[in-house]
Amino acid sequence: MTGWIAVAGLGPGDDALVTDEVRAALAEATDVVGYIPYVARVAPREGLTLHPSDNRVELDRAGHALDMAAKGRQVVIVSSGDPGVFAMASALFEALEARPDAQDYDIRILPGITAMLAAAARLGAPLGHDFCAINLSDNLKPWELVEHRLKLAAQAGFAMAFYNPRSKSRPHQFARALEILREEAGPETLVSFARAVTTPEEVLNTVTLGEATPDMADMRTVVIVGNRDTRRIGRFVYTPRSAR
Amino acid sequence: MTGWIAVAGLGPGDDALVTDEVRAALAEATDVVGYIPYVARVAPREGLTLHPSDNRVELDRAGHALDMAAKGRQVVIVSSGDPGVFAMASALFEALEARPDAQDYDIRILPGITAMLAAAARLGAPLGHDFCAINLSDNLKPWELVEHRLKLAAQAGFAMAFYNPRSKSRPHQFARALEILREEAGPETLVSFARAVTTPEEVLNTVTLGEATPDMADMRTVVIVGNRDTRRIGRFVYTPRSAR
Repeated sequence: MTGWIAVAGLGPGDDALVTDEVRAALAEATDVVGYIPYVARVAPREGLTLHPSDNRVELDRAGHALDMAAKGRQVVIVSSGDPGVFAMASALFEALEARPDAQDYDIRILPGITAMLAAAARLGAPLGHDFCAINLSDNLKPWELVEHRLKLAAQAGFAMAFYNPRSKSRPHQFARALEILREEAGPETLVSFARAVTTPEEVLNTVTLGEATPDMADMRTVVIVGNRDTRRIGRFVYTPRSAR
Repeated sequence: MTGWIAVAGLGPGDDALVTDEVRAALAEATDVVGYIPYVARVAPREGLTLHPSDNRVELDRAGHALDMAAKGRQVVIVSSGDPGVFAMASALFEALEARPDAQDYDIRILPGITAMLAAAARLGAPLGHDFCAINLSDNLKPWELVEHRLKLAAQAGFAMAFYNPRSKSRPHQFARALEILREEAGPETLVSFARAVTTPEEVLNTVTLGEATPDMADMRTVVIVGNRDTRRIGRFVYTPRSAR
């Protein structure tokens, strides 16, 4: 098999955050697959076929990429942020596992700047101490598990970053998440809402958990909750390196 | 004040993982400060002064950068990986907090590919589900807090990435960490040791917690522990997107 697949992270939005490694893979590719808005970030050129697809069809998309690689195509699956953080890399391995010829595929994962680290950089250094990343969506896990993790993460004193904080279909879940965090971490804890970071639509907003309301987040927002030591300095938010 | 400070992430080692944003800041800088091996990655040029410094002098280094910016210099503090993850961004804000003119500094944090995401990409997708990042060093926090976090993280079912897994001065601590993880997560859980990722010295090794020994890690290793669903497929390790 001469084809290959690279799963590439395009970063959060600003093209200055795309790595040369990803650019090189895109320059060699014969095919690019991915969710519509991510494929739209790839410049068309002769010899390159773009295959944009809808949201929530990750396994189909991964299967399509594997089929093309098996036929000798050089395929880049594009992802926003980093492909290994709540993105396409896991979906590809899931699709791969179902194939009897799984060993034969030439696969590379190309890291990118994930949304929480881009958001943290714009805010200051809110993830400067031990932290966790939680996908708040209950599409692929029970909501009870999300609640369990929020409680334990707060008890551990982790700073936290939340992906997909608010589901259109179930807006009350993020309200419940804030409630749990207020109880476990205290109402004075800082929470930052970082929307569309590094794009022209970027909005940053930091409040206390006591002041936070569910409508401060939407699907383009990364939410970052500090630990008890997280504080403001001017327009920045940071978590010190030391802990008691 | 016309000077500025950018805290820039150089990524894990491979220059193809440095972003254009970081390259642009380095091209405009008059001064680069940082730990010796990171400053060594910046090409010398006319008009640029390099200020390499020793390890464990983060606050002095940050103070030096602030002094130079106050005099109108354009200063890049270089960090490996991402500056917001166990690196220089927090140290800079700590130094800034002590200054009465803290508001006057022009500061930007430029994200980079952090070691755990580079390691995860080389391994497959072991951080494909909810995960946490813990600095195992007890330089800036009590070891008891590390143990507490390891237990809660395992109970939460997080995949985990450990920075600074092994201290030369206290090698028994990492042995204790593995012991806690075996108890809390079970001996069949996969653990990966990713050393010097993306450099010519890269070594990847995945075993079960039951098979893991402390000498598998050193200070250049990122350790990634899966959750109970993490599995191998060929040479890859991945954590599925879904959880029960």
